[in-house]
Amino acid sequence: MESYLQQSKHCAPIIATLSSKKKNHILLQMADALENQTSRIIDENSKDMDLGEKNGLETAMLDRLLLNEKRIKDMATSLREIASLKEPVGRVLEGWVNNDGLRIEKVAVPIGVVAVIYESRPNVTSDVGALCFKSGNVAILKGGKEAEYSNRIIASILQEVLAINNLPKAIISLLPDSSREGVANLIKMDRYVDLVVPRGGEALIRFISQNSSVPVVKHDKGLCHVYIHSEADRQKAIAIAINAKCQRPGVCNAMETLILDKSIAKEILLDLYDAFVDKGTQLKGDPEVQEIVDMELATEIDFDTEYAANILNIKMVNDVDEAIAHIRRFGSEHSEAIVTENYTIAEYFLDQVDAACVYVNASTRFTDGGVFGFGAEVGISTNKLHARGPMGINELTTYKYKIYGNGQIRA
Amino acid sequence: MESYLQQSKHCAPIIATLSSKKKNHILLQMADALENQTSRIIDENSKDMDLGEKNGLETAMLDRLLLNEKRIKDMATSLREIASLKEPVGRVLEGWVNNDGLRIEKVAVPIGVVAVIYESRPNVTSDVGALCFKSGNVAILKGGKEAEYSNRIIASILQEVLAINNLPKAIISLLPDSSREGVANLIKMDRYVDLVVPRGGEALIRFISQNSSVPVVKHDKGLCHVYIHSEADRQKAIAIAINAKCQRPGVCNAMETLILDKSIAKEILLDLYDAFVDKGTQLKGDPEVQEIVDMELATEIDFDTEYAANILNIKMVNDVDEAIAHIRRFGSEHSEAIVTENYTIAEYFLDQVDAACVYVNASTRFTDGGVFGFGAEVGISTNKLHARGPMGINELTTYKYKIYGNGQIRA
Repeated sequence: MESYLQQSKHCAPIIATLSSKKKNHILLQMADALENQTSRIIDENSKDMDLGEKNGLETAMLDRLLLNEKRIKDMATSLREIASLKEPVGRVLEGWVNNDGLRIEKVAVPIGVVAVIYESRPNVTSDVGALCFKSGNVAILKGGKEAEYSNRIIASILQEVLAINNLPKAIISLLPDSSREGVANLIKMDRYVDLVVPRGGEALIRFISQNSSVPVVKHDKGLCHVYIHSEADRQKAIAIAINAKCQRPGVCNAMETLILDKSIAKEILLDLYDAFVDKGTQLKGDPEVQEIVDMELATEIDFDTEYAANILNIKMVNDVDEAIAHIRRFGSEHSEAIVTENYTIAEYFLDQVDAACVYVNASTRFTDGGVFGFGAEVGISTNKLHARGPMGINELTTYKYKIYGNGQIRA
Repeated sequence: MESYLQQSKHCAPIIATLSSKKKNHILLQMADALENQTSRIIDENSKDMDLGEKNGLETAMLDRLLLNEKRIKDMATSLREIASLKEPVGRVLEGWVNNDGLRIEKVAVPIGVVAVIYESRPNVTSDVGALCFKSGNVAILKGGKEAEYSNRIIASILQEVLAINNLPKAIISLLPDSSREGVANLIKMDRYVDLVVPRGGEALIRFISQNSSVPVVKHDKGLCHVYIHSEADRQKAIAIAINAKCQRPGVCNAMETLILDKSIAKEILLDLYDAFVDKGTQLKGDPEVQEIVDMELATEIDFDTEYAANILNIKMVNDVDEAIAHIRRFGSEHSEAIVTENYTIAEYFLDQVDAACVYVNASTRFTDGGVFGFGAEVGISTNKLHARGPMGINELTTYKYKIYGNGQIRA
């Protein structure tokens, strides 16, 4: 493991200082290579699919694992889009002249060696590899065991393009020991690894956060709320609530609990109920909700659960402060929304709710690097430090100060 | 410990949303309170001094521990300066409208609960407490055992001012269990603590980095170099080298190794030697340096040592690449400098050297929050993530996205 990581570290200055032109040219070559080798990829992927079926993977999981011509084309398109993004390295973030006449520039630079740990979908291998490459970082990739053949062939194809360009393969590589022990080992190697980004299961992320000496940017839980304030526009409120829950219930920015102001509940709850039933949503309500419409009871445990499914809790509150208190208690600081026409309440909610993304009159589903305009995303950070919310190529950079003097010494 | 930290966490939204006006008013009251209670502080400090003498603390350490009228006045002045700094919370860092017509604003917000671990000098207690307060964070302070009485009285005085303003004392508090076990406990409490900032001894910082589940921004080692390139201006080179080593040898931004280009060595080394001898610097050279001037041998271990004393290694190189390779191997990514009149070499060095601060024709001693214009500093981060280099009040903030919609749902 150590000699492998030494190689990764050794490559950091090579990729960090590669020109934008060269990087983009290579990304386009990688896109072509993936398309040209579609059959090789499908062959390897079918090994994963066979094993998956033999091991009884769920249909949804198998579907995420599957690569076909269309999906490989999409992977290539994604690489071309990443190539077209604005260069993240070298951006001057700030600049000034200090009292001593030193010209100080705060400049974006790559982080160094970035390890990303993820699950199932093999397209993440090329996506994240390309995002790290574009942002000048060495990528260490650790995909799911169920996608091992697929990840290996994708990484090999990217590495072949690196080799054609006389660049070391270690710039994008798979972690050689992909066991849990391998990961445990990796996250203690702060001498070589600058950042670890775990995506996926809560247990894995907890394990990494608790044990890593490498800085961690987590991409985990999304327990999001929509609060319908007494002065909400009813139509907007219903549309946003339905969208936040039902448009794609399995993702982290979907709503898990709808918070209803008591003073609007009576006039809106029946319409909401009908709309959700229409979408096949399983509803759970607190006792006050149950008084108006009959449904299952929402318990404390329910309020603390990220369903990742078409299930919704409904909670009744007296006012915005009670709504905020509920969000503070159960929210995961991911995405929170208020629906209101009241200016002061909207601003109050935006200030008081501590989350990566706080919305007024819009669905929580918009928390996404693509939607934000970042191009592609590594994921959505639930960290408070370094990067918060959607994490694109700019969030894969850090900064350094370049200081231009003319002989200054400190008095 | 847990109930104490719960209280800290509970205070986070209170201080996070306090108005700038109110915060600055309180900081000025704190400054007055410190001055007004000078004798109370000196009384408590003398208990630390007595214990220190009894326990055989070194004179330098005792001097750092000492509080007198002048130093307490300086502490008050520092608080007034912090009050006068531009409000860090609420800065709009970026803003745009996305394709869906959502107005997205990236806004600076406090981090939450910040724990700072430091040693000896008791003025850090008021400085860091005030910096956290100004930036809207709850401060958990853990000073050195040798300054316990002093830190307690200072924290009490700040807390008395909080109480007068009907604010909970937990906004600025000392960690109740200041033992190593207490710290070990603290750094596992990621549910309550958002950031831990260790300053001081390498062993402590290593322990925290290796064991913390709370994000860590380290403030540790500074192993800095000055490289005198063949096209350096001789006068600038000598002045910068002397300043970087001798102006204050005990600090982290002082130079430990001077790297000399061979082609300039013969004409500059004797002058440098004389200048350093004049300053009482103990010199160690590699074999090539020893050929020109007789001095002690600089070993690999020397090149890897942060002396924090008036001792200097001198290393000879063939060119800029060899200099960069040496810096990559031994540097601590803190502050590195090149002295040259060559434009291309200067730019190359700035790009290739990966450090928080990279200088051309200026002393490494300028790496400092005050000098940079940040007002006051929490310290100098040797992390790559979140904050790098001098860390002021802006670096004690994170951000959130405020998103203003008018009913948008995701298609």
